[in-house]
Amino acid sequence: MAVGLQTPQKLHPVRGIRLAAMHSGIKNDGSAKDLVLIEIAPGASLAAVFTQSHFSAAPVKLCQQHLGLEPEARFLLINSGNANAGTGAAGLRDATECCEAVAELTGTTREQVLPFSTGVIAEPLPVAPIKRAIPELLARLEADNWLEAAQGIMTTDTMPKAVSLELEIDGKAVSITGMAKGSGMIKPDMATMLSYIATDAAIEQDELSQLLGQMVKGSFNSITVDGDTSTNDSCVLIATGASGVRVNRGQQEFCQALRLVFEKLAQAIIRDAEGATKFIEVRVEGAASESDARSVAFTIAESPLVKTALFASDPNWGRFIMAIGRAPLSQIDPDLVDLYLGGVRLLHQGLPDPEYSEALGQAEMSRTEITIRVNLNLGDAKACIWTSDLSYDYVKINAEYRS
Amino acid sequence: MAVGLQTPQKLHPVRGIRLAAMHSGIKNDGSAKDLVLIEIAPGASLAAVFTQSHFSAAPVKLCQQHLGLEPEARFLLINSGNANAGTGAAGLRDATECCEAVAELTGTTREQVLPFSTGVIAEPLPVAPIKRAIPELLARLEADNWLEAAQGIMTTDTMPKAVSLELEIDGKAVSITGMAKGSGMIKPDMATMLSYIATDAAIEQDELSQLLGQMVKGSFNSITVDGDTSTNDSCVLIATGASGVRVNRGQQEFCQALRLVFEKLAQAIIRDAEGATKFIEVRVEGAASESDARSVAFTIAESPLVKTALFASDPNWGRFIMAIGRAPLSQIDPDLVDLYLGGVRLLHQGLPDPEYSEALGQAEMSRTEITIRVNLNLGDAKACIWTSDLSYDYVKINAEYRS
Repeated sequence: MAVGLQTPQKLHPVRGIRLAAMHSGIKNDGSAKDLVLIEIAPGASLAAVFTQSHFSAAPVKLCQQHLGLEPEARFLLINSGNANAGTGAAGLRDATECCEAVAELTGTTREQVLPFSTGVIAEPLPVAPIKRAIPELLARLEADNWLEAAQGIMTTDTMPKAVSLELEIDGKAVSITGMAKGSGMIKPDMATMLSYIATDAAIEQDELSQLLGQMVKGSFNSITVDGDTSTNDSCVLIATGASGVRVNRGQQEFCQALRLVFEKLAQAIIRDAEGATKFIEVRVEGAASESDARSVAFTIAESPLVKTALFASDPNWGRFIMAIGRAPLSQIDPDLVDLYLGGVRLLHQGLPDPEYSEALGQAEMSRTEITIRVNLNLGDAKACIWTSDLSYDYVKINAEYRS
Repeated sequence: MAVGLQTPQKLHPVRGIRLAAMHSGIKNDGSAKDLVLIEIAPGASLAAVFTQSHFSAAPVKLCQQHLGLEPEARFLLINSGNANAGTGAAGLRDATECCEAVAELTGTTREQVLPFSTGVIAEPLPVAPIKRAIPELLARLEADNWLEAAQGIMTTDTMPKAVSLELEIDGKAVSITGMAKGSGMIKPDMATMLSYIATDAAIEQDELSQLLGQMVKGSFNSITVDGDTSTNDSCVLIATGASGVRVNRGQQEFCQALRLVFEKLAQAIIRDAEGATKFIEVRVEGAASESDARSVAFTIAESPLVKTALFASDPNWGRFIMAIGRAPLSQIDPDLVDLYLGGVRLLHQGLPDPEYSEALGQAEMSRTEITIRVNLNLGDAKACIWTSDLSYDYVKINAEYRS
């Protein structure tokens, strides 16, 4: 069902990063990979952002604790099929035990291992199969395993999501490769369900953290499937420095490439959203503030009535007006609003465009990639949000998720 | 599909109110009533609240204008099948023309006629059939036509919604009868789609307005189907005074009866929500403020993941945690939170209850009427919200609405 999304082709290895993935026994399907280990060479920088949920999961809390102690992170241990969220103190003990198991076999400390989980909430983490699998994962570590790792973090995703670029800076090759998972419970609030992006450029720690914040805002924090924010959202950016090329936020070419990787990964989540049959871009311009622009865009993007009309290819654009009408805003003048569906103008200064016809609207709504554009004509602020439609399959997938 | 809702049986006439309903030609189905006229005897008080949408419909704007001029409202003209919203200046002219048609035939002014519309947004109001039908509507006015009127304001509703009570105050009979419509685009922000409640008690104008505000908060402003607020929400409360009984907000028995009518009407909308298979009550207690309590309750009630789990009768209560986790709150301590599904405790002080079993959860989730209760254990504020589940039929109804 994924909209305009193919299995990633060439994924460039990132020097300083090795990965492994396998089936450990968490998922019921015995052939499905559910455990991933990522090894980071010494000397790398790492920045991470996590969910803002009041009920953040045990691995999220432990990651924040480990990162707060400022050891050099050397391993990421990621399981799919179980979120280890809503599991209280037992969940923290379980995640710690898994980190210790990696540390023991690798001569690192448990604080140098960062745990991540994704899957069903409020069920105990199956620690035994995870610990049993670690020796084999260590033996399988390879620089070329990005695709396997992207498969290993999937839950309701229908295909692995990864993006990779290679560029030349100062005559040297620099690679950026990232992967992400997620297709429901998606309105990341800091980051997406799980995403890992690495480069072999060298980037100072502070610089890397600021760069991650910038990148996340226009990518993972600009998508929504159902407005539901996960307890486990995590996004990690690693700079190994192994290319010997030092960059910072002023390096335009690198930042552009990095932004592209973040955007493509975030869009991949929407293209593979639960039950999605369409990929929707909502652009809001001319707002009094960026928060107003994002408010209008998210209200349109999350309206069940807008989403069902998009699914049905029905140009029932009164629902766009309804959504703009209920968006919480600091400032709006309905008589200034312009509204477009693709290239077709629906409203001009708050009034139905006399040139509009149902046939024109129908043609735009029938596309699989649709842009809804609103101009509030009040100021300079704007926002761009990506979302999917609401289909029978969204209900089916989420009604049957645990069965 | 309506959950625990029957066609209203006995509806008491309200002295001072006469009603008529018929098919005028707005709806495609030639037998479906789509136009209602309500006549109010001179000397009545009337209070109304309307949608907060930035794009409020033409009839909403006109009602506010007419009420602002403080004439004595004598007629309500209500059509279904067309919302007359997103129709600009033409929409205002159309609504005015309909009011004038009633005024001419009844010797009133157009400001004494209040127009209401509900149906498809962004299509011109068919004025001609409405005007043609007015003489017949006037001829049909009867005190006993509440059920016909409730049918005449339906759109995707599967059954008419009306509630009626008779009580004795100071040895005299007082009646309260109300009707409402709405089953999708329901998160009223002041009032519901359309609701009209009348009593033959005598109530001062100011008193009536305050009473309406109180009543709406705990009824129509405490329900949500899809979080989508209509452009046409309107709620009208009329006190004809024809019973000769004068009451105010201090009259407990009357206020209790009135509250019951408001609550039952609001709940009727949820019981008949688009595609609903279940009726859900979300109670939040122990919040630091009422706005926090409502925020948690609405976030649970509007989460597509919670709603699909409820539809599937799947006790996947990790989704309740997810929703509480993402609710915008001034104050929360996850380690204090208690969570209940019906009589079964899921979380105690933020930790899974050891007594909980999947079988217990399954039994609760299989009911058609379900209560989710959260205690934040922080303060005294609370909220109660009613909602429905998210089923295949919600998608079907809204994908096919105009076809």
